[in-house]
Amino acid sequence: MKSASTLDFLTEALRCLPGIGPKSAQRMAYHLMQHDRDGAAMLGRALTQAVETVHHCASCNTFTENAQCDTCMDDSRDATLLCVVETPADQLMIEQTMTYKGLYFVLMGRLSPLDGIGPKDLHLERLIQRATDGVVTEVVLATNFTNEGEATAHYISETLKSRSVQVSRLARGVPVGGELEYVDAGTIARAMLDRRAT
Amino acid sequence: MKSASTLDFLTEALRCLPGIGPKSAQRMAYHLMQHDRDGAAMLGRALTQAVETVHHCASCNTFTENAQCDTCMDDSRDATLLCVVETPADQLMIEQTMTYKGLYFVLMGRLSPLDGIGPKDLHLERLIQRATDGVVTEVVLATNFTNEGEATAHYISETLKSRSVQVSRLARGVPVGGELEYVDAGTIARAMLDRRAT
Repeated sequence: MKSASTLDFLTEALRCLPGIGPKSAQRMAYHLMQHDRDGAAMLGRALTQAVETVHHCASCNTFTENAQCDTCMDDSRDATLLCVVETPADQLMIEQTMTYKGLYFVLMGRLSPLDGIGPKDLHLERLIQRATDGVVTEVVLATNFTNEGEATAHYISETLKSRSVQVSRLARGVPVGGELEYVDAGTIARAMLDRRAT
Repeated sequence: MKSASTLDFLTEALRCLPGIGPKSAQRMAYHLMQHDRDGAAMLGRALTQAVETVHHCASCNTFTENAQCDTCMDDSRDATLLCVVETPADQLMIEQTMTYKGLYFVLMGRLSPLDGIGPKDLHLERLIQRATDGVVTEVVLATNFTNEGEATAHYISETLKSRSVQVSRLARGVPVGGELEYVDAGTIARAMLDRRAT
């Protein structure tokens, strides 16, 4: 096995994938070489192409191959609404609900002081510039409802409020289809505090 | 997100990796683009290079970049012993024990009729040819002790015995450091039947 340097190189390279350790990487390398060489060749091309062509949208910071992404270029969208999400996957989930027709700003992360991720790493100055450009009238914070996501929302909210921008947050409460018996107390407490007149 | 075709292509291509579904593939693609473009570029090169240069050893069927692998080319090894393993990873484990100095034959799989893997898919005719070449005096079966591994060992054993080749199997028994209380009954039964004079 000593001279299998190309295979060793592939195994080592596969470890750049999140959650893949040495054993999994080795299994993947053997699998590709034995059972899916076409797939391996295609993945090789896809990676090279993506590294060359994919960069960040100048407006919303999501991934795109053009200067601006499709969503930002879409004139039919409501430019007065700006929704802040952590990742492109979150944006995709919101798009699938068909309830939002505004534009987005994708943080590509969340504030996480323990991991050394501060406001600068999230390009928050670009978000603030965008939110205060005179076109945007409401910023909808749709970061996750985790501790870090909440902290990120709080930080952005405080920063924008001091600049007189209207800020909202996705509603918290009992999930649709949820049974109170199986919902955690924190969520029910939140739903009670945020109860709405019917 | 519609026109992120390069990213979609990458996400789709990542699904050739074993155990990676659509959500994991998407997370991997975003992770690589956001946090590890160097890793992605290197993985792309490694895949392309591996697909081009890695093939099977003419003698033992393992992966190599040359006509024969290093182990088969090593004159210091005992060519009268031939150890049959399922995968290169199994071979590596045996090498690490430093208890075997013979050569190998790597099946790159196991007999599995349910998956449509028969003797032809494992190149067993090449193994039999090799085992009956007059140099090999003993074939050590080191397939896994799973049902499929045992069936593979049985099939090879029967085929070779009918050709008067001496065949052995790795010993089964209580693992080193094992406590009887926590070892399964089948293993203890086997250890009892295969007990050795001390």
